[in-house]
Amino acid sequence: MKVAHLGETQLISKCARNLPRRRDVVVGIGDDCAVVRLAGTTVLQLLKVDAVVEQIHFRRDADPRQVGWKAVCRAISDIAAMGGAPAHALVTIALSPKMELSALEALYAGIRRACAKFDVALVGGETSRSPGPLFINVALTGFVERAHCITRSGGRAGDLLYVTGRLGGSGKGKHLTFTPRVREARWLVTHFTVNAMIDVSDGLAADLPRLAGASGCAFTLDPSTIPRTSGCSTDAALSDGEDYELLFAIRPALAEKLERAWRRRFPKLPLTRIGALAAKRHGTKLQARGYDHFA
Amino acid sequence: MKVAHLGETQLISKCARNLPRRRDVVVGIGDDCAVVRLAGTTVLQLLKVDAVVEQIHFRRDADPRQVGWKAVCRAISDIAAMGGAPAHALVTIALSPKMELSALEALYAGIRRACAKFDVALVGGETSRSPGPLFINVALTGFVERAHCITRSGGRAGDLLYVTGRLGGSGKGKHLTFTPRVREARWLVTHFTVNAMIDVSDGLAADLPRLAGASGCAFTLDPSTIPRTSGCSTDAALSDGEDYELLFAIRPALAEKLERAWRRRFPKLPLTRIGALAAKRHGTKLQARGYDHFA
Repeated sequence: MKVAHLGETQLISKCARNLPRRRDVVVGIGDDCAVVRLAGTTVLQLLKVDAVVEQIHFRRDADPRQVGWKAVCRAISDIAAMGGAPAHALVTIALSPKMELSALEALYAGIRRACAKFDVALVGGETSRSPGPLFINVALTGFVERAHCITRSGGRAGDLLYVTGRLGGSGKGKHLTFTPRVREARWLVTHFTVNAMIDVSDGLAADLPRLAGASGCAFTLDPSTIPRTSGCSTDAALSDGEDYELLFAIRPALAEKLERAWRRRFPKLPLTRIGALAAKRHGTKLQARGYDHFA
Repeated sequence: MKVAHLGETQLISKCARNLPRRRDVVVGIGDDCAVVRLAGTTVLQLLKVDAVVEQIHFRRDADPRQVGWKAVCRAISDIAAMGGAPAHALVTIALSPKMELSALEALYAGIRRACAKFDVALVGGETSRSPGPLFINVALTGFVERAHCITRSGGRAGDLLYVTGRLGGSGKGKHLTFTPRVREARWLVTHFTVNAMIDVSDGLAADLPRLAGASGCAFTLDPSTIPRTSGCSTDAALSDGEDYELLFAIRPALAEKLERAWRRRFPKLPLTRIGALAAKRHGTKLQARGYDHFA
């Protein structure tokens, strides 16, 4: 059988069986980042790798500066989604010998700009030849206080669901220029008890069921409330993906205070309540109610 | 200008300029691993990424189980070269949709076996499509006590140079089946003051000048003493590369005790004195004496 016949989730479940374990691992495969304990401190370390491949994640004619920015910021977004601050990056680039040096320098300029903006030190990497496409892998560490580490799986039935920013339209260029929500996530987790969080990288239609599923919940979603990028349909807002906004679950008692404080702190970035987590009904399929809304 | 006209070192010096810094970085780009301080503990963290690409680092018909082993063990060897123990791995695989699922499972079996043998937890990763070759990137963390962290740059004129194992002949299969010297390196750094260390991944002819250069030294090398894999010429032992043995510098007063203790502890693995670090002469090129021996 060819791997083409399996989805990524099936591939991972096939390959990530019987993995060697260590006692210092808090969260392994299956969340935005891995989480490990560091001996002698109450701070947790977040670990993430993320790859972008030419022809798959960006076109050959994309601005290399933006490609570099995107490669780093995708990984930063995952660190933010767990409540953490990014720290150290290592970048692997496999490139064709025919690549123009000026393009490689522009790519690194984008990488450097992203690192500088989010206080990330670029501490290592590797340059290898590629017989074909340009391949960029970013390995990123981050840190988060034990009390502020948010996974996808802590949501409870009744929690309200919020999303930052506006969704959809990433294909028009936003996917290369987005800002990962580090500042917002750090503020959120230090001021409010967030039960579950994820970054919307594959589209709300994929990532909301992921968060709900990891939390053992179903969900309700009112599509008319989804904050849309100007000119985008609800469908685009649900499915385009690469929004890199935060989606999180919080208990209803905190809603009013959160919304007020958010408007004061981030007046330019919308925060929108789009639905709620709900109890999973016996005998019905997970997320059945949610997917109804997508129909 | 095409990147093909530059060597890897030149590429790195072009691209790794003006990097964002952080105060917790002890060693950045330029050693076997990056080294960072962890707040609240005296243990240092080692960070490494390493990539293998089909057609560059292995042939299409290579045993995928061995390719998986190699991908992980290359990074482990770099952690060992700094005196550390590996801990957490994240593996990125970009693959063609035409790849056989059985080959991918075999690849992961090799990855798992390497992780299990060296107490590494596989905590994350990514699977992406590749429009062409198979690409595997391993990001690896490790830990080392502050007193036992060995860089390339601590060697001093007069230090004796030792190498573990036998060099050369990696092309006959050893490059896919080698054992990274974690156990030996951990024993070394906890029992002896090692001044500088590197793993021999590009061949002694490349890695010895690197260690000497980083230490600000020249070196002497007696080619007749180089421990050769059976059937290999001195030239092969110098230049084949992918030996993944340890090369280290230690002050002469420790030599006798080291050699005796090594034979008792690792009776099956040779430890060979091959030369010494020497003062760099003004006006002569770095490593000039060493390269004479290579002629």
